[in-house]
Amino acid sequence: MSQNKTIEITFPDGNKRTYSSGTTGYEIAASISQGLARNALSVTLNETVLDLSYPITTDGTIAINTWDTEDGKATFWHSSAHILAEAVEALYPGAKFGIGPAIEQGFYYDIDFGDRTVTIEDLPKIEQKFIELARSKNEFVRKEIGKDEALAYYKEKGDEYKVDLLQDLEDGTITFYTQGNFTDLCRGPHIPSTSAVKAVKLLNVAGAYWHGDSDNKQLTRIYGVSFPKKSMLDAHLEMLEEAKKRDHKKLGKELGIYMIDRMIGSGLPVWLPNGTVLRRRLEAFLRDEQVKRGYQEVITPHIANLNLYRTSGHYPYYADSQYDPIQVDDEEYMLKPMNCPHHHRIFSSKMRSYRELPIRLSEFGSVYRYEQSGELNGLSRVRGFTQDDAHIYCTHDQLKSEIKNCIDLTQYVFSIFDMPVDIRLSFRDDNDEKYGGDLEHWERAQQEIREVADELGLDYTIAKGEASFYGPKIDFIIRDAIGRKWQLGTVQLDYVMPERFELTYVGADNAKHRPVIIHRAPFGSMERFTSILIEHFAGDFPLWLSPVQVKVLPISDQYNELAHEYANEWKEWGMRIEVDDRSEQIGGKIRDAETAKVPYMVILGEKELTSRTVSVRRHKKGDVGTFSFDSFTTLLKNEISQYILPDKVSYNN
Amino acid sequence: MSQNKTIEITFPDGNKRTYSSGTTGYEIAASISQGLARNALSVTLNETVLDLSYPITTDGTIAINTWDTEDGKATFWHSSAHILAEAVEALYPGAKFGIGPAIEQGFYYDIDFGDRTVTIEDLPKIEQKFIELARSKNEFVRKEIGKDEALAYYKEKGDEYKVDLLQDLEDGTITFYTQGNFTDLCRGPHIPSTSAVKAVKLLNVAGAYWHGDSDNKQLTRIYGVSFPKKSMLDAHLEMLEEAKKRDHKKLGKELGIYMIDRMIGSGLPVWLPNGTVLRRRLEAFLRDEQVKRGYQEVITPHIANLNLYRTSGHYPYYADSQYDPIQVDDEEYMLKPMNCPHHHRIFSSKMRSYRELPIRLSEFGSVYRYEQSGELNGLSRVRGFTQDDAHIYCTHDQLKSEIKNCIDLTQYVFSIFDMPVDIRLSFRDDNDEKYGGDLEHWERAQQEIREVADELGLDYTIAKGEASFYGPKIDFIIRDAIGRKWQLGTVQLDYVMPERFELTYVGADNAKHRPVIIHRAPFGSMERFTSILIEHFAGDFPLWLSPVQVKVLPISDQYNELAHEYANEWKEWGMRIEVDDRSEQIGGKIRDAETAKVPYMVILGEKELTSRTVSVRRHKKGDVGTFSFDSFTTLLKNEISQYILPDKVSYNN
Repeated sequence: MSQNKTIEITFPDGNKRTYSSGTTGYEIAASISQGLARNALSVTLNETVLDLSYPITTDGTIAINTWDTEDGKATFWHSSAHILAEAVEALYPGAKFGIGPAIEQGFYYDIDFGDRTVTIEDLPKIEQKFIELARSKNEFVRKEIGKDEALAYYKEKGDEYKVDLLQDLEDGTITFYTQGNFTDLCRGPHIPSTSAVKAVKLLNVAGAYWHGDSDNKQLTRIYGVSFPKKSMLDAHLEMLEEAKKRDHKKLGKELGIYMIDRMIGSGLPVWLPNGTVLRRRLEAFLRDEQVKRGYQEVITPHIANLNLYRTSGHYPYYADSQYDPIQVDDEEYMLKPMNCPHHHRIFSSKMRSYRELPIRLSEFGSVYRYEQSGELNGLSRVRGFTQDDAHIYCTHDQLKSEIKNCIDLTQYVFSIFDMPVDIRLSFRDDNDEKYGGDLEHWERAQQEIREVADELGLDYTIAKGEASFYGPKIDFIIRDAIGRKWQLGTVQLDYVMPERFELTYVGADNAKHRPVIIHRAPFGSMERFTSILIEHFAGDFPLWLSPVQVKVLPISDQYNELAHEYANEWKEWGMRIEVDDRSEQIGGKIRDAETAKVPYMVILGEKELTSRTVSVRRHKKGDVGTFSFDSFTTLLKNEISQYILPDKVSYNN
Repeated sequence: MSQNKTIEITFPDGNKRTYSSGTTGYEIAASISQGLARNALSVTLNETVLDLSYPITTDGTIAINTWDTEDGKATFWHSSAHILAEAVEALYPGAKFGIGPAIEQGFYYDIDFGDRTVTIEDLPKIEQKFIELARSKNEFVRKEIGKDEALAYYKEKGDEYKVDLLQDLEDGTITFYTQGNFTDLCRGPHIPSTSAVKAVKLLNVAGAYWHGDSDNKQLTRIYGVSFPKKSMLDAHLEMLEEAKKRDHKKLGKELGIYMIDRMIGSGLPVWLPNGTVLRRRLEAFLRDEQVKRGYQEVITPHIANLNLYRTSGHYPYYADSQYDPIQVDDEEYMLKPMNCPHHHRIFSSKMRSYRELPIRLSEFGSVYRYEQSGELNGLSRVRGFTQDDAHIYCTHDQLKSEIKNCIDLTQYVFSIFDMPVDIRLSFRDDNDEKYGGDLEHWERAQQEIREVADELGLDYTIAKGEASFYGPKIDFIIRDAIGRKWQLGTVQLDYVMPERFELTYVGADNAKHRPVIIHRAPFGSMERFTSILIEHFAGDFPLWLSPVQVKVLPISDQYNELAHEYANEWKEWGMRIEVDDRSEQIGGKIRDAETAKVPYMVILGEKELTSRTVSVRRHKKGDVGTFSFDSFTTLLKNEISQYILPDKVSYNN
């Protein structure tokens, strides 16, 4: 091979440049700008993340990973885990190390402290050592090492966990990374130097069995998060603090939204009265929108014959997430894991003409999927949930306009909650063989999705290999009020199920054709979406969603009659009103209403009685003025019917 | 024993009379009036039905059973089954007889015709023979007979079915009944003479396995119905004809209400778009009523840990009607057979104060109960259904007013559909030991139910022994448009579950007390009620329930724009409107709308365009006049919001 070989590097914007073989990612970054090189943490070459110092010898597509990229953050946090281990080794000589990966928000390391116990109290000390080591500006040095040599190193060090890990590795693929005085068995990659890590917070200590197996020894897992700037850490800690206050499990209980009851079952939320109001409002809101957009609602049973899922192919392939079959006479039934096959059977229950298409079948359909008990979490990870599901059966020619309608509906829905949406087009990875259906259809569909996205002027990313096995999809990732991202609605194209269920319609040519199916669900799951809504609004729901909208607070018993009179008038308008007619001080009544996060408190006393006015307090805002009964009623009606957000209401009384 | 012993007979009105021992039911009837004696068919003494000729030798409560009573009809039809057998024996010598009971509407006899095949074609001939025999005025003669003698009779006759039946009978309890030339093994009782049967119709022939076991021989079951007057038969046949036209399975398919799909499962209805609209309207109607009456809605999962049903006692005692448990990790779960235990757990999820009571938890809760596949029938007998369930937790002092509220709600609900309601108070049978809970509570509850019924001025019957095991109940039996009776809503008191679930509230005395529970469900099951509604209205639903309320029919394409303009305005009001903008003749459009049973057809042509009016047709009524757009809109709004029935709308245009 020639030493003078050149490589062709393609950049994300499609530009190509030629470099001599052996050029490093750092050098490529520097060839673009010194600033980029300074901020680079690693590079991604053909979907493999590499050290900046790694000599590149093949053509490929490259991305320079800075802090603003997912790969960059992962590299940064993985390196931080090594610094944590270095700090621990310095403070606790003889500590043995398991694994120390980056996670979604930070990193952890599993450590065997031997006879010593390390608790949350010890974390500040370790943090201090961490920062000291980070400031030492040590480089991360990669070294390829033979398996025997590596085994010898860890046997001498007495770290049986690394020895255990080495057993499974193949000679010739093993690397060590060293920074300062600490060497770790590690595939890499790492940031160039510890100096990039300017701030760290060790968050928590937990027990973790080696290999996740309770027969093994329990190690101590230290969780942390680190940043290239101190201000970022401050913002992150503030967000965590805020998230804790908004925790839907805490608020869900306080506000009477839902309960989990052991006797009923783990992962099976029970919607309490306030939660049921909230959920019914969400359903009604979406149902109304769907009716306007030509959807038809259906209701299907929660169990079905196993043959239905054999036809769809969901059984036995997804048996791990399904419940065991139930024997009924000589047939087997299953709790339904999805609504799709039921809707396909409705479509095929009679002959369909092209004139009927598109047919849009929607259902608030409850499905049951097994989750390990350790994974269960409040409303956000459950074993039974209700999808705001729909399936659109259309011709190929209708596909673009139907996709457009779905995107429009999804964007409208999230705009109501003031949730910014990121859009990801999840496409097929041509190198992966898992995808079903006709390649030509796939390409046409992906092309059309892109066209629709462009025509709508959407800002989107494309994720290859993120499609579902039956077709490409559009994923909607929303950002909540404290900046966290949640993947919610999807719009999925499906070319496989029409074949499996032999769906046809009679075309204008009098011949039978296959329709295309679009699966879509803006909220995704009523349970998970509600958990996100609770945290997004911190329980301060907009008026139209609030379980109790107005609490009427008579100053003393003599105004109780007036309170009920007003309450009844508002109830006639369909509003959710409570009267606090206890013989309590008004201060106490206000305090209780504030605790219950009731949006409006209406205070009634002598002044209000004689002038037929109401003194109004808004939750968190305090007194917002005195209104005539009628003008306040109008204000309520407007705020409810226009889905106005709490912080956008104006009071011109 | 003295021959001059007397007996004391108590009549339903509480009056008592004394007779000499050995007096017959007929003589007792005659002692009241000759007319009563003439119309008497049997008597019921202390809940046992007896021949009119049976000598009565004990004190007791007596009812004289005429045609107007259930016991009277049953006697009449059972005797008719004997006449049927006599006719068959006359026409098909050597036919062997299984069993021949009275059923809800008539009677049947299972017959082995040997090598001969009897079909529906043969029924008129048998009917003729039946009437001829009935006119012979043969008496039914009862005879006590020894088991050996009875066995010998049937062995000689060669009727192995009667021999089989005799095996299980105890010597000394066996009786034969003879009328004319036919003798049957029979416990009785029977009407005095065949002459009471003036009209008969043999309705159907079906196969029926001996003892219902498919390993046994299949006999021929002949169904019939008979009456004491020809006019009654005519009315009955007319009703059957009408019922056939109204059959919810036929209309359910034609109107797109529901489907049963083998691939999804037997007995698991799928609600199609039109059915879903109808069901959602019913739910919304009841939900609104319930909110007004202080109910709180909840949503609970469709499966639960078996321990929940062990606590309620529903498992394993009702295992026959339940689906097999599903193993989840190391726990067992079951498809929920009822919603009650879930609600009880919501009640007990926090400390309750007497100030919170009554707590009224409602749920449109889907439950799953096993039914044999032969029993399944459209929407009326299914394996999965949704109850309009609610549980009211109250103090003993609140019981009467809560019962009153429940009765009021149920009566209101059925009044909307113009369904007359019969009320039955189902009380405990003190001789039966199946009843749970404290006797004192039972008596107080039964007393209070009676008081409430009297205070409300209800016309009710009392049925001893019809209570549920956990408390007395009130059953609502509605009559549909063609006079058939259906047991729907119930209101049940429950003293057992509060104990089993250890439900408590803190009283004003600061001590813990047990609440009482009321279970109630006006519709009972959304599926079954919908089947009854379809048949009650023959698919011509009131406007507020109609899946499509108005079909707009432009006379030609040039009026399509106007049609959509009007349609959109009505849709803004939440109305369900379709536009038939096909290029079809107006006659065809009207025909299609009539077939779909759409309540209103709005016809738009040149006249309507220029005058901004609408020509309106009402389904089945035809043209009802020309209205201004606004006045017709007002008419629609009134008819919908006031639940006006189709035949009660007035058109003052």
